[in-house]
Amino acid sequence: MLTTTDPIDQRFGLARRVTLPGPLKLDSGALLAPVEIAYETYGTLAPDAGNALLVCHALTGDQHLASAHPRTGKPGWWQRMVGPGRPIDTDRFFVVCANVLGSCMGTSGPASTDPATGRPYAMDFPVITIRDMVRAQALLLDHLGVARLAAVVGGSMGGMQALSWAATYPDRVPAAVVIASTARHTAQNIAFHEVGRQAVMADPNWRGGDYYDGDPPAAGLAVARMAAHITYLSEAGLTEKFGRRLQSRERKSFGFDADFQVESYLRHQGLAFTDRFDANSYLYITRAMDYFDLAEEHGGLLANAFRGTGTRFCLVSFDTDWLYPTAESRSIVQALNAAGAPASFVELSSPYGHDAFLLDSPDLDRVIAGFLGAVR
Amino acid sequence: MLTTTDPIDQRFGLARRVTLPGPLKLDSGALLAPVEIAYETYGTLAPDAGNALLVCHALTGDQHLASAHPRTGKPGWWQRMVGPGRPIDTDRFFVVCANVLGSCMGTSGPASTDPATGRPYAMDFPVITIRDMVRAQALLLDHLGVARLAAVVGGSMGGMQALSWAATYPDRVPAAVVIASTARHTAQNIAFHEVGRQAVMADPNWRGGDYYDGDPPAAGLAVARMAAHITYLSEAGLTEKFGRRLQSRERKSFGFDADFQVESYLRHQGLAFTDRFDANSYLYITRAMDYFDLAEEHGGLLANAFRGTGTRFCLVSFDTDWLYPTAESRSIVQALNAAGAPASFVELSSPYGHDAFLLDSPDLDRVIAGFLGAVR
Repeated sequence: MLTTTDPIDQRFGLARRVTLPGPLKLDSGALLAPVEIAYETYGTLAPDAGNALLVCHALTGDQHLASAHPRTGKPGWWQRMVGPGRPIDTDRFFVVCANVLGSCMGTSGPASTDPATGRPYAMDFPVITIRDMVRAQALLLDHLGVARLAAVVGGSMGGMQALSWAATYPDRVPAAVVIASTARHTAQNIAFHEVGRQAVMADPNWRGGDYYDGDPPAAGLAVARMAAHITYLSEAGLTEKFGRRLQSRERKSFGFDADFQVESYLRHQGLAFTDRFDANSYLYITRAMDYFDLAEEHGGLLANAFRGTGTRFCLVSFDTDWLYPTAESRSIVQALNAAGAPASFVELSSPYGHDAFLLDSPDLDRVIAGFLGAVR
Repeated sequence: MLTTTDPIDQRFGLARRVTLPGPLKLDSGALLAPVEIAYETYGTLAPDAGNALLVCHALTGDQHLASAHPRTGKPGWWQRMVGPGRPIDTDRFFVVCANVLGSCMGTSGPASTDPATGRPYAMDFPVITIRDMVRAQALLLDHLGVARLAAVVGGSMGGMQALSWAATYPDRVPAAVVIASTARHTAQNIAFHEVGRQAVMADPNWRGGDYYDGDPPAAGLAVARMAAHITYLSEAGLTEKFGRRLQSRERKSFGFDADFQVESYLRHQGLAFTDRFDANSYLYITRAMDYFDLAEEHGGLLANAFRGTGTRFCLVSFDTDWLYPTAESRSIVQALNAAGAPASFVELSSPYGHDAFLLDSPDLDRVIAGFLGAVR
């Protein structure tokens, strides 16, 4: 049994971090060494190490899955989903969540120190892919003594990682849950991300990425976040939440302050994001998502990614998600069917668009609990 | 008959401009004087001045409707729709198109000289509304001797003006064509515009709008345009046009240059826009669109805007337009029905999203030609 005396780096308290020597060979051909990985675990690893379940986080997520964020004190981002007796049941599973490669919550990324210079990598950090993120997670699981997962679970970019896990390490993943995700970024997905990157790069504070000893490109990053945030919400959800309601009950200001509640909300989302996220990480992770095309990695045919797999799949989409619409999940299911892989698929109804997977959804809870109930 | 010797200001050649003394009372309560209006005309005004047809342009459009832009040399933006024997037939109609209030193609806007200071208004220009744009157009028609139009036609923001014309001056508008438009901006519409405004305002060159004697906020405006441009295209259209095709046939660069064609296209759209549009005008016109809610101007009930009207309406939407989807046109038609106003409505099929109204569309040509054929 893995306990606190086992070789897990405890320096960061609940936020654990390990430095692995590497080198990690990346899709670009570059070698990354060392590889730092910050992660969290919940539950207890079984003596046979067979009950580990990996949760992969989304673009701006972190490893604080089901416990308070050490700095903000906010609950974990999937606290309602992960815990004793919850759909991802920590009485059964040893749940691992690692900050993705390229991010800024303790795992190696552009803000990390480049051992060659002793300064932050900035734009000298190698461009990474979703598969590189998965490879780094595999190194972590090796370190934790987990040869084979019980399951991998992820929503949005986490779902891309879950798919990539199943395609890259089929023998290590008997079950994969892919929520509100896609097997490739479309032209529209890339377009929205490119707007965000250009917003960051247009900020004079970005300075080619070398801003770590000065003011960060917060204004550009805020604009990037605002644009992205719209894609996480449905039109109907925005209308329900804000409509055309004004900030003040009185009347329009006939000025350029935030007259409408939706403007104020978006500005807040943009500003709050800059407090917790590194602009260069945003560039690198959006790039990884845009590069993601699982079919392309397998000769242009998505089914090839899963041919002969032993993984069982559970796919979930939301009917108002226009970022990764149901059609994307359906095409994954078709590829799984063509590959002969067992797959269940459900489209859930929600007014909240892409973000629905992070919100209270009894339907989603039931689907995940049901699927994981049959695991192991 | 109006000829070139009639009192139309010819100083600008094909691009005509008139300075009207005003003052124009605006929805904000402010008074604007003088009111400069740049416009174009095509065809000949009938002796009874009864064949004038007003075309209203969209957010970033101009008065160069059916003739080459004097600076770029490019064809007019609706050249294929307007001309002898075309759906908007200049053998029959005297067609007028005026640059909207707040814009930067010769009509009064933030870049115009403030008579109080002798310098550009910048952010001292009053915040305007769609109805203010219409009021300015009415002044122009007064000047041209047109008491009553034969019809008003507009797409997108032009459609908002057409609706506002019918609601504000019902006796001057016997027929209105409203294409790919809406009677109010939704929370999502406002959200996208707010991203654009914040992108402009985040550019240090914006300097609170006082940039006319220095470098303009081109980088911010380019980002704004990129974000908006995505909303003008359908997901399917982007996929058809670009998909995930790379700029180079070789391979991904594993860098941050434009790898994908859609990135390069968007960057070009952003940059090209900054050559032809004033950033402050972008702020003012997006604000006017966000303020637009025709129901709100009429006690909260859209039907009230058209009660007792003699105007005949023709509404057209496109099935892939997600900026102003068919549901918006349908709700306008329901309001017209409730008001007892004659209205025809057709949803056209196009892969091109909102921009479809500007592109070659024989179906749209037929609808407009048919409706206008019964006018007058």
